[in-house]
Amino acid sequence: MPTPLGQELRRLRFEKNLRLEDVANGTGITLQYLSMLEKGDRKSVSFEIMADISRFYGVPLDYFAAFIKEEQSQPLSDVEIMLWQSINEKVRDEIYYKKGKSLKAIFAKLFN
Amino acid sequence: MPTPLGQELRRLRFEKNLRLEDVANGTGITLQYLSMLEKGDRKSVSFEIMADISRFYGVPLDYFAAFIKEEQSQPLSDVEIMLWQSINEKVRDEIYYKKGKSLKAIFAKLFN
Repeated sequence: MPTPLGQELRRLRFEKNLRLEDVANGTGITLQYLSMLEKGDRKSVSFEIMADISRFYGVPLDYFAAFIKEEQSQPLSDVEIMLWQSINEKVRDEIYYKKGKSLKAIFAKLFN
Repeated sequence: MPTPLGQELRRLRFEKNLRLEDVANGTGITLQYLSMLEKGDRKSVSFEIMADISRFYGVPLDYFAAFIKEEQSQPLSDVEIMLWQSINEKVRDEIYYKKGKSLKAIFAKLFN
């Protein structure tokens, strides 16, 4: 039976009109592993692999984590995922490269 | 040899003055697994386990992902991690529960 995470990975792939082969080529993950992952045939998923998939699809890892806990497995729209990822990358850039406005300013903007 | 991820997990734990036993009790992960993880004795780390650790420490999964790629393994300060996690949770709440200001408004604030 497909796991919530497997279902979401398949949904994302279909939405982008990609074949498993395309994801395998784009990530370096084997076709077999990807197929098992989507079908829910793996008991445990590797963090490294999920990080590669997250980068490939442009989806935050923290989004995928919601699909491990079954009760929270509502897929988001393309736009919502894209916004979350953009904000995530913006925050990461602010922290790591101290570009532009300071993190504290971002924080103040969000919470005021 | 400790991996960058293992070193960072140990650093976080020391910073909070926790023993491995405390992390094991708080997460439900076995002492042995946690010890191997910090020492870098595991080839692959489970995504599910990292999600539990992320929740326990209040650290975004996307932060931990940086430590898989060795070149990006700069630890952040407590405050920076806390800010990132807060923003992350804020965004997640906005998306999942549509509370308060809309995501697009947040996005506009950050990027203007």
